Amino acid sequence: MKNAIIVGATGFGGIGLIHILNSHPELKVKQVTALDHGKKISDIHPHLKGICDLPVEHPDEVIYEDTDIVFLATPDRVGMNIVSEFYKRNIPVIDFSGDFRFNSQDDYTVYAANKGMETIHSCPEILTQAVYGLPEKNYSLIEKANIIGNPGCFAISMILGLLPAAESGLLLSDTIVCDGKTGVSGAGINPGQANSYPLRYDNTNAYREGTHQHLVEVENILNRFKEKNSGEKQIFFVPQIIPQNRGILTTMYSDCSENIKTDDILEIYRKFYADSPFVIVSDKSPSTSEVRGTNRCVVRPMIDKRTGKLFVTSVIDNLMKGQSGNAVQNANIRLGLGQNTGLDMPAFYP
Amino acid sequence: MKNAIIVGATGFGGIGLIHILNSHPELKVKQVTALDHGKKISDIHPHLKGICDLPVEHPDEVIYEDTDIVFLATPDRVGMNIVSEFYKRNIPVIDFSGDFRFNSQDDYTVYAANKGMETIHSCPEILTQAVYGLPEKNYSLIEKANIIGNPGCFAISMILGLLPAAESGLLLSDTIVCDGKTGVSGAGINPGQANSYPLRYDNTNAYREGTHQHLVEVENILNRFKEKNSGEKQIFFVPQIIPQNRGILTTMYSDCSENIKTDDILEIYRKFYADSPFVIVSDKSPSTSEVRGTNRCVVRPMIDKRTGKLFVTSVIDNLMKGQSGNAVQNANIRLGLGQNTGLDMPAFYP
Amino acid sequence: MKNAIIVGATGFGGIGLIHILNSHPELKVKQVTALDHGKKISDIHPHLKGICDLPVEHPDEVIYEDTDIVFLATPDRVGMNIVSEFYKRNIPVIDFSGDFRFNSQDDYTVYAANKGMETIHSCPEILTQAVYGLPEKNYSLIEKANIIGNPGCFAISMILGLLPAAESGLLLSDTIVCDGKTGVSGAGINPGQANSYPLRYDNTNAYREGTHQHLVEVENILNRFKEKNSGEKQIFFVPQIIPQNRGILTTMYSDCSENIKTDDILEIYRKFYADSPFVIVSDKSPSTSEVRGTNRCVVRPMIDKRTGKLFVTSVIDNLMKGQSGNAVQNANIRLGLGQNTGLDMPAFYP
Amino acid sequence: MKNAIIVGATGFGGIGLIHILNSHPELKVKQVTALDHGKKISDIHPHLKGICDLPVEHPDEVIYEDTDIVFLATPDRVGMNIVSEFYKRNIPVIDFSGDFRFNSQDDYTVYAANKGMETIHSCPEILTQAVYGLPEKNYSLIEKANIIGNPGCFAISMILGLLPAAESGLLLSDTIVCDGKTGVSGAGINPGQANSYPLRYDNTNAYREGTHQHLVEVENILNRFKEKNSGEKQIFFVPQIIPQNRGILTTMYSDCSENIKTDDILEIYRKFYADSPFVIVSDKSPSTSEVRGTNRCVVRPMIDKRTGKLFVTSVIDNLMKGQSGNAVQNANIRLGLGQNTGLDMPAFYP
Repeated sequence: MKNAIIVGATGFGGIGLIHILNSHPELKVKQVTALDHGKKISDIHPHLKGICDLPVEHPDEVIYEDTDIVFLATPDRVGMNIVSEFYKRNIPVIDFSGDFRFNSQDDYTVYAANKGMETIHSCPEILTQAVYGLPEKNYSLIEKANIIGNPGCFAISMILGLLPAAESGLLLSDTIVCDGKTGVSGAGINPGQANSYPLRYDNTNAYREGTHQHLVEVENILNRFKEKNSGEKQIFFVPQIIPQNRGILTTMYSDCSENIKTDDILEIYRKFYADSPFVIVSDKSPSTSEVRGTNRCVVRPMIDKRTGKLFVTSVIDNLMKGQSGNAVQNANIRLGLGQNTGLDMPAFYP
Repeated sequence: MKNAIIVGATGFGGIGLIHILNSHPELKVKQVTALDHGKKISDIHPHLKGICDLPVEHPDEVIYEDTDIVFLATPDRVGMNIVSEFYKRNIPVIDFSGDFRFNSQDDYTVYAANKGMETIHSCPEILTQAVYGLPEKNYSLIEKANIIGNPGCFAISMILGLLPAAESGLLLSDTIVCDGKTGVSGAGINPGQANSYPLRYDNTNAYREGTHQHLVEVENILNRFKEKNSGEKQIFFVPQIIPQNRGILTTMYSDCSENIKTDDILEIYRKFYADSPFVIVSDKSPSTSEVRGTNRCVVRPMIDKRTGKLFVTSVIDNLMKGQSGNAVQNANIRLGLGQNTGLDMPAFYP
Repeated sequence: MKNAIIVGATGFGGIGLIHILNSHPELKVKQVTALDHGKKISDIHPHLKGICDLPVEHPDEVIYEDTDIVFLATPDRVGMNIVSEFYKRNIPVIDFSGDFRFNSQDDYTVYAANKGMETIHSCPEILTQAVYGLPEKNYSLIEKANIIGNPGCFAISMILGLLPAAESGLLLSDTIVCDGKTGVSGAGINPGQANSYPLRYDNTNAYREGTHQHLVEVENILNRFKEKNSGEKQIFFVPQIIPQNRGILTTMYSDCSENIKTDDILEIYRKFYADSPFVIVSDKSPSTSEVRGTNRCVVRPMIDKRTGKLFVTSVIDNLMKGQSGNAVQNANIRLGLGQNTGLDMPAFYP
Repeated sequence: MKNAIIVGATGFGGIGLIHILNSHPELKVKQVTALDHGKKISDIHPHLKGICDLPVEHPDEVIYEDTDIVFLATPDRVGMNIVSEFYKRNIPVIDFSGDFRFNSQDDYTVYAANKGMETIHSCPEILTQAVYGLPEKNYSLIEKANIIGNPGCFAISMILGLLPAAESGLLLSDTIVCDGKTGVSGAGINPGQANSYPLRYDNTNAYREGTHQHLVEVENILNRFKEKNSGEKQIFFVPQIIPQNRGILTTMYSDCSENIKTDDILEIYRKFYADSPFVIVSDKSPSTSEVRGTNRCVVRPMIDKRTGKLFVTSVIDNLMKGQSGNAVQNANIRLGLGQNTGLDMPAFYP
């Protein structure tokens, strides 16, 4: 049994990890820390009573010994300031924020500027070591990485939907339209307008049209792995918030070569994801409820007969494949366990 | 005070009309009919107690005398079989289904085939007289029409979002991508999988991608009114159902001339809708909650700086501007009343 | 046309008033103030665009001239500190908090202690002039009152459900059990755990069992008006928060004389509310959706045949009869208008 | 590994069992049957793809060999007509309906009449062998039972809340008031008014006040096990449907001996449930979200200081402890496994 520490354990990312690791056969939570320390985690979150009754300790009280991995379930610009303590002890780190999703200050600058934050990375020397935690593409890098940047929830939904087409050179458009719908839990646990019940119930709106910070991650990956002869790709991404708790459904649109049919594209996607246990390629419209509570992503590529457009739908649970589930998958890979260990739960339905 | 009859009064369309006409100063409900007749409407819908206690009568018991207008709040292929009785008496008809949204059997065939229905229109001679009930474009036709086809909810959200750009020749793409999100009430009052609470709560999915029946309406209008030199337009429309009761948010994407900026497009839209009291052109992301319970449509056109895409968001209440509200607006126009008479209610918020 | 000022206009109480007064034929909003001043109210709440575009002014900038009534849509302990300015100018005040729901410091102490606030009333001389804004009982007092304490939402749902039985001496139990369910909007507009979407969706819990501050209002009224020979009544009130936006459903339980049947109790209630346009006595289970957006309260009293218990259900919209709607009703009465002027809207349904 | 058959596998009860047994270490689903047979269960319910892809077979095609237990996840009056085939082969049966929750035709008659069904039980000789599947009381009977009637969801929430008080003679009232709130999934998977999204969203109502069929179960158990000197108990139960998917919160009210304090009652409850792994006695208000997706019941007994009332809150997931979870617990007991085998999942939160 290996030991994990969760830093920032009291948010949705942290309690998501506790949920998963509770039934994980080879990795257990050894310590939890957070700024709102001083109580048991199950006093803050009563649903954890009898499941995890560890005390929430101050982040400074981390016990490094016998720690096999650490999850930094912390907001932007926290991980970069504490990562070095783990790094110098060779404890692999999985960071939930944008702090280590890039390898360069340049990329980080774009990301941070879009989010309206300070743009200077405070830990540039470790930044260059970071591996993007996308198991479907970076498996072998993750196996050896000590700094893993867990992807943004919207970002992974787009990347999994577009990557096979990009690698096959099927994305003829220079600009790929990505229309993303997310549940309210994406706004996190801290109360604000974005997760206010009276303002969000029976309500949908778009926001940060074309300027959402996850854009950079997607363009980075697509342009790194796209078929060589196809031109540089841009994403026009329009995030929207819908009145549900969990779930992201992203619809993606591109021009495509005329001779490609839906069956062809399905075959390309199925081949691409043949070794990816959590990506299911489907020929039917997926629902977010199919993946609620799971680490699955259902991807449905098709060609619209009338217009010839390549159209892809992808659905994930934003707190699972979009956050804690994918983080545990990365941890499994890094620790030499089967990548789906502890992650085979069926959907929570209905 | 003018008199209206509502046929099919017990569904969402019918009770929406009753709600509006309850405080309409110049048009009142004289009679309501439906197949589930035999009770008072307020026994079927208790919220109408004291508001409208008319008996629901059999559709055959329509009293034509002193009827100034009739609303057929009936499903597809009902209106076409009863319209002639009103037509021959010169009683103007506003039909809520697809029966009279087209002028030709050809267009109807495409619509009906997409919906998987019988495709032969049973009343072709009246079909040719039908006017599409889009007040923002067909005002003067509606003033004289005796057969008005009230637009589909998704259709009107797309048309209002795209028409100014189409008329100005700004839609450079041949295929316009339309990504539509609707609340569950769009599926109507009859219980089924599409409006089941346990299946719809916390759930979103796309359906009929590229084959939704409202497509035809939009392509018809855009191609009739588009700037002459621009080519034929196609719509790739992907409807989605989200876990809210009311509201449609549609996002629309097209290439656009390079020299057009957001301010230009805002000006074009504002000019286009200068005389349209219910269409509000905004430079901010609209929310469906802003229009809940109103006949308003908020349209927000913008140019994405990075990619140059023309992007339009439109929001409506699918039961109001998408159905009963627009129908009363049409009735007002046809009866010579101010088009916003009885329709100036503020949004139901929160 | 009379003029109203709204203090605290940016919360749910304030925008509820703006909504109602928008179509009120004899009372209009002249000025709005709030601590978050400096913008137009429609910039803060975009659904008000074109409905009410008044600037939100600082509370100190109130213009007393030509003001016929003022609504203090403010939290506890705000009204008591600003009321004297209106009082000395004979401008009638309707306060939304608990500041003027009582006539004595003693009662206020219990209320404030239950809410965990400072218990000394800062304006005791005006407190004694306050009239409890319950039109169904205090109509003639409200007609002349210059300080009206608008009832608590839960309180009015209980009082309207129990008062006819109390006056008729039918409540045999010393302790009346009141089980109240409220929508999340009852927690107000400021974000917090009580109105967090992820924490409230698909979730119900009880809170402040037996110690909710609205208790005092109910016991006050019941014991003031109860049949003389019946003993002092206590309320055991258990509030619960359910995942809906608007609506309160309260179920109330008491022992009852053996010879009373459901028909008798219905007759007693109907007689009691014969002149109360907004209270509907029903012999069927009411739904909160029947009263959504209205100033109505549906009360359904019955006798359980097996156990002989008197059981009453009452439903209201907590933001209407439980807040702004009842406040406008009080204003109508005070200003000599028909009490239902501007308040006859049908339910917002579905 | 033992083998289970699920009859009626396509409803919420059936897919709940499949979910639980998917990660059960000693009991697996061998066969699924239902009237809507002919497809794979994962074609009907796509979230089961890769989790359970068994064909749904006709109920007549049950394979009795190597079957260790059968779950009849069927509606009322189905189990009674097929149970004998299992009974004669000594295959233990767990029935989800009211068919085997009683031992006598008399009790069944009351139950069936309340539900408005045919009241003659079609299998009276097996009825007398039935054991009520309440592990917290009938553990040793369940160990040997071949016919187990799984309790009603509301019934078990009331019984677990009241039984310790009843056994201790603390329920002084003759009539215990039970106010129950259930999520919409309690209405099952078949579409109807009771689970229509537009009718249920933002809506709450009571129904079958005092006549719900689960009453009989509760009165049976309480009167069988109550302290000898306390009189016969009646339940006045008022079920309510609230706009959430899963969860039951029941509030229960009784008079109580004056000398009992909250601490005493907590101790009594804790002692009573000392060996019941799924019942958690709490001194804090529980939320339904704490038990979502679990087999837990949190019970919170207290004495209201002002009125002396004994007040108990209990929360369960109606599809788990209220249905499939409790059924698996019964199966575990009957098959000689630890009662919590496969049932230790944490709450699905948020």
